[in-house]
Amino acid sequence: MSEQSNQSTPSGSSVTVLGLGPMGRALAGAFVAAGVRTTVWNRTPGRDRELVAQGAVGAASLEEAVAASDLVVVCVVNYDASDALLRTESATTALKGRTLVNLTADTPDRARESARWAEAHGIRYLDGAIMTPTATIGTPHAVFLFAGPAGLYGEHEPVLAALGGTRTHLGEDHGRAAAYDIALLDIFWTAMAGYTHALAVAKAEGVSGAELAPFAQGIAAILPDIFQDYGTRADQGVYSGDTNPITSAASSMAHIVHTSEAHGIDAGVMRAAEGLARRVIGLGHGTDGFIRITEVLGRTAPAEQH
Amino acid sequence: MSEQSNQSTPSGSSVTVLGLGPMGRALAGAFVAAGVRTTVWNRTPGRDRELVAQGAVGAASLEEAVAASDLVVVCVVNYDASDALLRTESATTALKGRTLVNLTADTPDRARESARWAEAHGIRYLDGAIMTPTATIGTPHAVFLFAGPAGLYGEHEPVLAALGGTRTHLGEDHGRAAAYDIALLDIFWTAMAGYTHALAVAKAEGVSGAELAPFAQGIAAILPDIFQDYGTRADQGVYSGDTNPITSAASSMAHIVHTSEAHGIDAGVMRAAEGLARRVIGLGHGTDGFIRITEVLGRTAPAEQH
Ligand SMILES: NC(=O)c1ccc[n+]([C@@H]2O[C@H](COP(=O)([O-])OP(=O)(O)OC[C@H]3O[C@@H](n4cnc5c(N)ncnc54)[C@H](OP(=O)(O)O)[C@@H]3O)[C@@H](O)[C@H]2O)c1
Ligand SMILES: NC(=O)c1ccc[n+]([C@@H]2O[C@H](COP(=O)([O-])OP(=O)(O)OC[C@H]3O[C@@H](n4cnc5c(N)ncnc54)[C@H](OP(=O)(O)O)[C@@H]3O)[C@@H](O)[C@H]2O)c1
Repeated sequence: MSEQSNQSTPSGSSVTVLGLGPMGRALAGAFVAAGVRTTVWNRTPGRDRELVAQGAVGAASLEEAVAASDLVVVCVVNYDASDALLRTESATTALKGRTLVNLTADTPDRARESARWAEAHGIRYLDGAIMTPTATIGTPHAVFLFAGPAGLYGEHEPVLAALGGTRTHLGEDHGRAAAYDIALLDIFWTAMAGYTHALAVAKAEGVSGAELAPFAQGIAAILPDIFQDYGTRADQGVYSGDTNPITSAASSMAHIVHTSEAHGIDAGVMRAAEGLARRVIGLGHGTDGFIRITEVLGRTAPAEQH
Repeated sequence: MSEQSNQSTPSGSSVTVLGLGPMGRALAGAFVAAGVRTTVWNRTPGRDRELVAQGAVGAASLEEAVAASDLVVVCVVNYDASDALLRTESATTALKGRTLVNLTADTPDRARESARWAEAHGIRYLDGAIMTPTATIGTPHAVFLFAGPAGLYGEHEPVLAALGGTRTHLGEDHGRAAAYDIALLDIFWTAMAGYTHALAVAKAEGVSGAELAPFAQGIAAILPDIFQDYGTRADQGVYSGDTNPITSAASSMAHIVHTSEAHGIDAGVMRAAEGLARRVIGLGHGTDGFIRITEVLGRTAPAEQH
């Protein structure tokens, strides 16, 4: 279900992009670069200037933008914003019979609710998520997730291919791209919180960002193998800590909190993370690995609710 | 100051390893494999069995183990543990005139205090930190940091080379390896907290570890470039959010908290991380990038204190 080419953009194809923040501009730029007839619009005017210079068509209104293409991509800050734009009578009327692809990040529930709204208004709907920074869009490094009817995805995949990278259709459940997105952004923003904090602690210790960065990259390099191992172990319920017990992790986490706070630097994120490790130890799993946290967190989630 | 070979282990060299947890065993195993005469000891007996079968010498007491080699490596859970082992009269006497390399993780202050203790007792002292899992030890993927007198490090580097990987001497300040260690473990354990949490949320959404892992690896793959960029920007005080404003991050973080808690899953780590983003926005930096967190956290750290 993953595609990796962007060489097949059909001639004569067209797309509308609503929302010209950094990501909307990157998406529109990739469509323009691939020779797709691209119409753009943004709530705050003036953001289309560079795109128009590159060959995009700047629409005077959202309705005019929607009317220009059968395929409409929206990418704004969240679904409160996309709802504010799309759930007016004139916008809904303009969208009728067209395909709407919402590449805005939000929760799985909002994505599913949007699919119901779209169906009720005769709008063909795909939901999606973008997992890589703006600079990757249109390059082999971009990663896109899609969810919704497979046939509808297949119909528009040739144009979406202009966005480059790897595009994966995750299934018919419209919430599935957002479910992956939430989990992946959970990893991303938590890791970024760790890095921004580490840079502050390092500086207080006289270690510069330039000095820390190569070693930080070394930490990033050991994550993929551990992610693979933990994913498998979470599925299989294997939590052993033979090579690295969670008591050892908790000890290191306490050192980080101590060093940070000794420099007057807030350690709330690490305190919360250490709290998870202490909870696991308190429950009698101190010889298990850190992965036991997943199981303990999940205990509170009634599986039958889903 | 970084060395990358392990082919030069001098014949006739010897080492003692104190502490045979998963990491101590890995270190001793690498020394044995490289042909270094290796004596081992652990507080709880019996942990040396496999190592002795491989050719290590199991000592009956810590003092006997120390007496066997001029180079003594200690690797236990933290400095409370290494102090409990080393700061007895008999151990201190046995260590006199030898080189002690403490590869236990703890804070920079503890490392500096240990150096003072060692000097007062005529013990030559290097501090160090291990940045990679046990399976990397003795392979090119291991990463070791060292701090302390350059001459002393140079003297023992040929034997330490048996540990494999990249070994970097960070300078004469004995706290410097621990300072890097704290910052790097801050990144590592925070990221791991994010991943264990993401696996729990994904499961509640019907996404397995096997399904999530390849995309999680994709997230790890985008970190090195961002780490480089943020490291430079932290040093230069460049916080712009042109391609990804912190308001956008805060919105995504709120979605993660919401989705997690809707499944009954504790979101304390992400709540704390979102709190940092909200604090930055509240201080008027909402159009800046996430890196602004480093500067805001650092404001509370009086630089002149160091
Ligand atoms: N930037 C990245 O690296 C990146 C990576 C992956 C995913 N994403 C996702 O892509 C989406 C867009 O992100 P972005 O980087 O372009 O920046 P953003 O700040 O998240 O979104 C900016 C866009 O949202 C619009 N907007 C904000 N509030 C609105 C409202 N109440 N009503 C209507 N429109 C509103 C803005 O319009 P105005 O100009 O009128 O304010 C602008 O078009 C987000 O969901 C983000 O999570 C971004
Ligand atoms: N495992 C990894 O992947 C990894 C990676 C990088 C760095 N490290 C660091 O390496 C160090 C050792 O870690 P580890 O993985 O071997 O496991 P660990 O659980 O951190 O340490 C176990 C060792 O500590 C000893 N110990 C614990 N409490 C003690 C006390 N009060 N007095 C004396 N000895 C005590 C244990 O002796 P007993 O057997 O008698 O309990 C055993 O030798 C830690 O600082 C850790 O952060 C580990």
